[in-house]
Amino acid sequence: MPDSNFRSIQSVGRHALINELMDDATVDHEHVIKGVGDDTAVIESSEDSLTLFTSETFMEGVDFDLTYTPLHHLGYKVLSAAISDIYAMNGTPEVALVNVAVPNKISVDMLKAIYKGLHAAGSDYGVQIAGGDLTASHQTLSLSISCTGKAEKEKVVYRSGAKEGDAICISGDLGSALAGLRILMREKQFWQESDQPNFEPELEEYEYVVKKQLVPKARKDIVDKFRELGIIPSSMIDVTQGLASEVKQIADASAAGAQLYQAALPIALETRRVADEMKEDVDRYALYGGEDLELLFTLPEQILDELADDLEDVRIIGKIVSADEGIKMQTAEGDLVHFEDA
Amino acid sequence: MPDSNFRSIQSVGRHALINELMDDATVDHEHVIKGVGDDTAVIESSEDSLTLFTSETFMEGVDFDLTYTPLHHLGYKVLSAAISDIYAMNGTPEVALVNVAVPNKISVDMLKAIYKGLHAAGSDYGVQIAGGDLTASHQTLSLSISCTGKAEKEKVVYRSGAKEGDAICISGDLGSALAGLRILMREKQFWQESDQPNFEPELEEYEYVVKKQLVPKARKDIVDKFRELGIIPSSMIDVTQGLASEVKQIADASAAGAQLYQAALPIALETRRVADEMKEDVDRYALYGGEDLELLFTLPEQILDELADDLEDVRIIGKIVSADEGIKMQTAEGDLVHFEDA
Repeated sequence: MPDSNFRSIQSVGRHALINELMDDATVDHEHVIKGVGDDTAVIESSEDSLTLFTSETFMEGVDFDLTYTPLHHLGYKVLSAAISDIYAMNGTPEVALVNVAVPNKISVDMLKAIYKGLHAAGSDYGVQIAGGDLTASHQTLSLSISCTGKAEKEKVVYRSGAKEGDAICISGDLGSALAGLRILMREKQFWQESDQPNFEPELEEYEYVVKKQLVPKARKDIVDKFRELGIIPSSMIDVTQGLASEVKQIADASAAGAQLYQAALPIALETRRVADEMKEDVDRYALYGGEDLELLFTLPEQILDELADDLEDVRIIGKIVSADEGIKMQTAEGDLVHFEDA
Repeated sequence: MPDSNFRSIQSVGRHALINELMDDATVDHEHVIKGVGDDTAVIESSEDSLTLFTSETFMEGVDFDLTYTPLHHLGYKVLSAAISDIYAMNGTPEVALVNVAVPNKISVDMLKAIYKGLHAAGSDYGVQIAGGDLTASHQTLSLSISCTGKAEKEKVVYRSGAKEGDAICISGDLGSALAGLRILMREKQFWQESDQPNFEPELEEYEYVVKKQLVPKARKDIVDKFRELGIIPSSMIDVTQGLASEVKQIADASAAGAQLYQAALPIALETRRVADEMKEDVDRYALYGGEDLELLFTLPEQILDELADDLEDVRIIGKIVSADEGIKMQTAEGDLVHFEDA
């Protein structure tokens, strides 16, 4: 018996709903420079220094599946995902708090495996896990990670600074985390349908994409490179929802349009092979696959021309255009198509 | 079939387990002054200023029960509980992030009711809710709150500074949140056993304790008063687990012992009435009842003598003694009993 007054969360959409929920916000703290609407909140901590502040929650059965996720990988991934938000502001992550809601099925040793991954990620990014809490949970495991970091006022990068003519750049490649997820889900189905108790999934051929799904790395190396080269992107965001969504975030925040070059989207060979096996369109993996944790950023084209050799793992995939041109993609055939139609 | 290698979380205990999990921590960030072991993490943000950082998770069915918790009260309570940690460091809360894991049974309007409470608490404490996230959840609602705040280096208060001879003080009264919980659980049982569809719980007589359970207030007023009077407690903690647990935290962190005066424990008349109705010992409510969000702190006795009139809602309930005296309580009859026996 559906209740006609029951407005479901899905019917509103996550972004619109967060904005609606924040409409009634009552406090504008004098130290808060940026609240909702970027990768992290931004708080003034001294005359020239900012504190960045972000948090993410990961629910079993929604954000991860314990049937194919090793627990130490899970710990590594959730901390990387939170830290990636700090890098997306051109900041330096410093401290994380970890809250775990633990159901009875999780033993002390399983929890220690999760923490092994958390500590490994802490090492890789130079982040101290400075506490957190354990609470009981009836059925599902969930992890909430909060992370703070630093940025210099002159160097922080928002989503909103992209200018007409800027090149749109992406680190690494796109769609590989989704390709890895497709493989893991397929193997899970084989395993569920198999009557062999010792079913072994075949993952060797898919090592790159499966790793990208299970233990993605936040792109510290890219932010370090920016510093080394003395560049500050005009805008930046990390790829968690998918390229299409992130490009729209940057365009909207910057009151601009964007044009992508389909032929330039970096896609790993293994990702193409997975899409072929699944009989799916690999460009959709690149546009709509999430969780890659790559950095999408914009820079004036002349800066890029000078630095092309120094930014090895970065590709130009489009350019910022005026807002009235909207968000489009130039196909390999040279046609301009609306993004949603791509 | 119990697995003899399965070490359950309960078998280890929360505090010991958190310490065990943090044993393998790999990073000691130069800016982190305090990690695990106090109400918040403490991070150096400038020469004389500190950032305080805390997070808490609240699970439906474990930390709250939607059958008797109005959603706007829930929002108010979870933000108050996180903010209370900042006050317990003698700090000023500034910014909160809210992550909600939302099951299908929660509508947009229900979520807005939770946010109404969050925004109301934000107003009361001067804290900006600067974002957060929504994620799906299969069955249960959960909320994770992260909060940052400021403290001056010279004024931050740790659990570890209590000195022999200091008076142990408590704001407000003890055990009332537990008394409220007992009443709400009794009414829930009446309702479940009742065959009347329009069962109305009788809560009027218990307004104070029910409010204390559903919408406890973090003691901003006490911390404001410290500032006004120019006092800095030697140690402080907020009452979330219960007085017995918090006194032990302060004594252990300060390498000291503690002696409580049973007759001095502040207990509201309504709390006494509830304990009587339940045929339970009200002193156990005061010692072991959690969630009061009162501030437990220590101060040299001569300072208190001078300021007694200015600290109206504060009672002296004991004194710090040497570590080898342990933690004891002087009963109304004058006997000294071990705490756990009380």
